[in-house]
Amino acid sequence: MTTPLTRQSLAQLDAADPLVAFGDRFNLPEGVIYLDGNSLGALPKGAAERAAQVVTEEWGQGLIRSWNTAGWFEMPLKLGDKLGRLLGANPGETAITDTTTLNLFKALASALRTQKADAPQRRVILTERDNFPTDIYIAQGLADLVNSLSQETGVAYEVKLIDSEAQLRAALDETVAVVALSHVNYRTGSMWDMDQVTAAIHASGALVVWDLAHAAGAVPIDLNSADADYAVGCTYKYLNGGPGSPAFIWVNARHHERFWQPLSGWWSHKSPFEMADSYTPANDIRRFMCGTQPVTSLAMIEAGLDIALEADMGKVRANSLELVDLFIELVETRCAGYGLELVTPREHAARGSHVSFRHEHGYEIIAALIDQGVIGDYREPEVLRFGITPLYLTRTDIWDAVEKLREILHTNAWQREEYAVRNAVT
Amino acid sequence: MTTPLTRQSLAQLDAADPLVAFGDRFNLPEGVIYLDGNSLGALPKGAAERAAQVVTEEWGQGLIRSWNTAGWFEMPLKLGDKLGRLLGANPGETAITDTTTLNLFKALASALRTQKADAPQRRVILTERDNFPTDIYIAQGLADLVNSLSQETGVAYEVKLIDSEAQLRAALDETVAVVALSHVNYRTGSMWDMDQVTAAIHASGALVVWDLAHAAGAVPIDLNSADADYAVGCTYKYLNGGPGSPAFIWVNARHHERFWQPLSGWWSHKSPFEMADSYTPANDIRRFMCGTQPVTSLAMIEAGLDIALEADMGKVRANSLELVDLFIELVETRCAGYGLELVTPREHAARGSHVSFRHEHGYEIIAALIDQGVIGDYREPEVLRFGITPLYLTRTDIWDAVEKLREILHTNAWQREEYAVRNAVT
Repeated sequence: MTTPLTRQSLAQLDAADPLVAFGDRFNLPEGVIYLDGNSLGALPKGAAERAAQVVTEEWGQGLIRSWNTAGWFEMPLKLGDKLGRLLGANPGETAITDTTTLNLFKALASALRTQKADAPQRRVILTERDNFPTDIYIAQGLADLVNSLSQETGVAYEVKLIDSEAQLRAALDETVAVVALSHVNYRTGSMWDMDQVTAAIHASGALVVWDLAHAAGAVPIDLNSADADYAVGCTYKYLNGGPGSPAFIWVNARHHERFWQPLSGWWSHKSPFEMADSYTPANDIRRFMCGTQPVTSLAMIEAGLDIALEADMGKVRANSLELVDLFIELVETRCAGYGLELVTPREHAARGSHVSFRHEHGYEIIAALIDQGVIGDYREPEVLRFGITPLYLTRTDIWDAVEKLREILHTNAWQREEYAVRNAVT
Repeated sequence: MTTPLTRQSLAQLDAADPLVAFGDRFNLPEGVIYLDGNSLGALPKGAAERAAQVVTEEWGQGLIRSWNTAGWFEMPLKLGDKLGRLLGANPGETAITDTTTLNLFKALASALRTQKADAPQRRVILTERDNFPTDIYIAQGLADLVNSLSQETGVAYEVKLIDSEAQLRAALDETVAVVALSHVNYRTGSMWDMDQVTAAIHASGALVVWDLAHAAGAVPIDLNSADADYAVGCTYKYLNGGPGSPAFIWVNARHHERFWQPLSGWWSHKSPFEMADSYTPANDIRRFMCGTQPVTSLAMIEAGLDIALEADMGKVRANSLELVDLFIELVETRCAGYGLELVTPREHAARGSHVSFRHEHGYEIIAALIDQGVIGDYREPEVLRFGITPLYLTRTDIWDAVEKLREILHTNAWQREEYAVRNAVT
């Protein structure tokens, strides 16, 4: 940079940035710099009003009638279509329902069944050792279910873990049925090249499921352009849907009539109100639904989606890259010598929208930061993680956060005993 | 009765009834008699305030910290224990999580796996043809998953349907692994004798899952006294948890360490924040959880539970029986000759807390009733269904509802074309 990097120079850049105005669309607490929007996004204005409307009017006054009159029945697909516009989805390809973990189970089971018909020797689910653990656990649960209930001996379904793209490519042999990858890694922030990796997986004869939990709303995504098979993800991180808001599942339209999934609740039935005594799946994305959704938590998602759709995703991404670059530069200049080691890739194309550092006292440092109003989070082992959400973070926020980090490191404030908060949810 | 049955005589009984005061604990719309609390319960006072607190304070101000500071982490089990007191559960046996359909999948898969170890020839899931359809569909989905992915030929997992208790008892042979029954039938209101039927199922060597969707909060239940294995159910009917509020699962403590379930998300892991790359289940009811729950919808459940726990369940049951008897008597006297045929058992021990009638124009009659402010619902085929919720229904409500029904039948008002509402959610 030609001008020296100061808080004032950053404030000038903020003042000229149209995206900064989106900060007014959120209610954030005073005195807090929130760097954990990759774990739980901030409260959009309008969400509290929407919740009150659902509870007081639609539930309280409309009662059961609101399933029709307030559009509750349509919400999973209507909101799914809105969300889909951020994913490169076509209308009718996305549903908001259940949790990310459950949606991954549906996608993996569906992929295994399709492979069973075409290529029965493909019985491996390939995923990342460094994936968010629930993705590994649910794959293991699925394989274990089939293996344990089957009477057969011999080759069983298996979950294999890879540690790098080179290992992934080497592992793509004729035994692999499906590959489940997190587009952006929950800990490191590193990002797969969705187009190239999808193509490599398809070339090997396998199917792919992308977990977009740390990507949706954070980076530009085009699932159809990448020709992906399935995607799942959550709405409570960069999409600001609220705590535990229902997750999404996307299935490429070319698969809708063919693919089957085993969590075949009545919402996935072709005619749920006929009350038939045998299951006939819907011939569209409804096939990937299951049971009745939590209406209040579901309805609130719309407030965050509307803000995200108003923003220019390319501009969000540009700001995210700039803010992460700034964070790294400030840590490496103003916190030099304190032992923080960058974990996140520097290369723009190889990272998402959070930035992580390793430090042997990472846990205590994060606890001290939170105590001082700079909210990041901690991930085993030794990782300090900071979510960068350009819709409500500015350059001066980044400056102030790193200054607080510097002060804590400089004064050894993190050694104080009271810093014993427990980890938050990813 | 010695005194003639009049609206006035009923009003006198209401005035002397301490349970009637519980009606003030709910916000109900003016001019409505709500007979669909078995589909979506009414709005308890306090629920809207709790939702606002979660959204505005806990999410908006607390942000990610609220997982710890607002007790979000503990809610599924804390609320589960509260609910468990209505089910004859011991502390630590009940979790509120996911949907009824998904919890049934977990319970059935767990039961099949246990049987596989002890009695591998037991591969039949037995359930009722007249069960709520999603219960049949999810059993079929589970069997289909294992059968379709297995390489073996020969005997496969199978879902068999029974139509009566006699058929159930006859079907309990050495091939049956697990029996899934709805304690109270969603359409007819008929109720199984949980103690006797559980004993018969156990005597045959099978396990039992009780679906309590139309029973929890409606009738006295003692799962431990009945020695049941699993139970699932929903919180948005007689428990007044709100639209689509998360469901519950109960597992007898004697099974906690032994039973396994395949929807093995990170919330079921022994140490979810260790981020281990292989799955180790928790040794308690947490094993039956999966992913992050919708906090706002979950938190609101407490308002309804607190009211239910304050009421005397024996008194609720007594009023329910009296109100249903009254409904039947009034229909059979004041609506005689209009072709309504009672579907629900008259015998007290054989029914739950809703009452159903068959009529060839049932759909149109219900639509007319709803239009006139008497909200019941319709279920295929030709069934008018009325939920009786003594916490917010009085004897005079029943009188007024049947009078409205009589007027609609007498004037043929149901023939008017505009009555074309669509069915509501069960």
